[in-house]
Amino acid sequence: MAERLIGMLIFPRLTQLDMTGPYEVLARLPNTRVHLVAHTMAQVKTDRGMEIVPTMTLADCPQLDLVMVPGGAGQQDLMEDAVVLEFLRKQAAGAKYVTSVCTGSLVLGAAGLLKGYKSACHWAWRDMLKDFGAIPVAERVVRDRNRISGGGVTAGIDFGLTVAAELAGEEVAKSIQLVLEYDPQPPFDSGSPEKAGAERVKRIRERLAPLLESRRKANVEAAARMQ
Amino acid sequence: MAERLIGMLIFPRLTQLDMTGPYEVLARLPNTRVHLVAHTMAQVKTDRGMEIVPTMTLADCPQLDLVMVPGGAGQQDLMEDAVVLEFLRKQAAGAKYVTSVCTGSLVLGAAGLLKGYKSACHWAWRDMLKDFGAIPVAERVVRDRNRISGGGVTAGIDFGLTVAAELAGEEVAKSIQLVLEYDPQPPFDSGSPEKAGAERVKRIRERLAPLLESRRKANVEAAARMQ
Repeated sequence: MAERLIGMLIFPRLTQLDMTGPYEVLARLPNTRVHLVAHTMAQVKTDRGMEIVPTMTLADCPQLDLVMVPGGAGQQDLMEDAVVLEFLRKQAAGAKYVTSVCTGSLVLGAAGLLKGYKSACHWAWRDMLKDFGAIPVAERVVRDRNRISGGGVTAGIDFGLTVAAELAGEEVAKSIQLVLEYDPQPPFDSGSPEKAGAERVKRIRERLAPLLESRRKANVEAAARMQ
Repeated sequence: MAERLIGMLIFPRLTQLDMTGPYEVLARLPNTRVHLVAHTMAQVKTDRGMEIVPTMTLADCPQLDLVMVPGGAGQQDLMEDAVVLEFLRKQAAGAKYVTSVCTGSLVLGAAGLLKGYKSACHWAWRDMLKDFGAIPVAERVVRDRNRISGGGVTAGIDFGLTVAAELAGEEVAKSIQLVLEYDPQPPFDSGSPEKAGAERVKRIRERLAPLLESRRKANVEAAARMQ
């Protein structure tokens, strides 16, 4: 059987856990290769400074069985990057699954790949999916036909296990969960806007406001280009 | 106020999520720098192939406020690496916190830093802590005086939030939890030996048996050297 090919986009100011959560799960699937795909083979600096090395360029990347776009502040640039958007459209046409974690779904949206699809996204950015004709859903992992998406950052691990079961069966997914000792016990209960409370949510929205505002304007233009 | 310095050891065949989980949390602390410390500045290949770039060598690393050792198959070599063990002993003498995730605690043990301390570890390797005079505890995050340890792989996120609260207060930790949308909802309930059931645990123990056996022999020798 041919090796299963998974490709995860990496780019400057990526949120590394968006990608490394699902990477840790999916790289353990039998008969599977996970590529980290970027413009060039130069190391990529994530939003907190960690540098990761790509394994494949956009230009050289073969047809993937599953393509995944993580999020992070750098997603803003990807949404304007014609080469990346074309890469995603081309891959999506032949891939079995088109997937994202966190604000990666906005990049899929900007590529025109989520029109009429339900999708997850980081809670603070979720509403922007509408700018691209997608239907935002406040769930940890969302599936609509062959689109599978995870919510913010750490949702990538739940996403990864869901995808693992889809690709290789539940038994494989459950074994990986045990190996990764994924029996989460957060010391606090502040992981969603509902649980964190209005005050804390407000403070984070305020901190993100300039970023959200500039993105909102850019979305209008990007959506216009999609017509 | 001087910048808080956190150092995470990275090494060949590291399990990347052991490190990148807590990295994602702790790199968001105010006034904090997180170093990825290795023998040289050459990129380090993790156990599933992802390559990560160190930011600091062992030799150049200043005194850290918190030192963290992640796990992964490569921990075996670290436990025999006199330079690493000496680095850890030296750092531990001046650090406020000496910490680990997953089988990283075995490396602290081999450095003689856990004698009489309670510690967490990946479930499959946990018993080996006794070889170094440590007291294995089957909990997600374990604290004993200034030693803080996380269990297997994904426990690093719970560990990271616990440490964040300790260093910068609960409010900061809760905000980071919200930004990372850490409201885990595993699609299956197979994340601990108790929950996964005896059959699945047996299969994974069998798969790990050669590794565990060779390690057990090496521990006896390492422990003897510690006397």
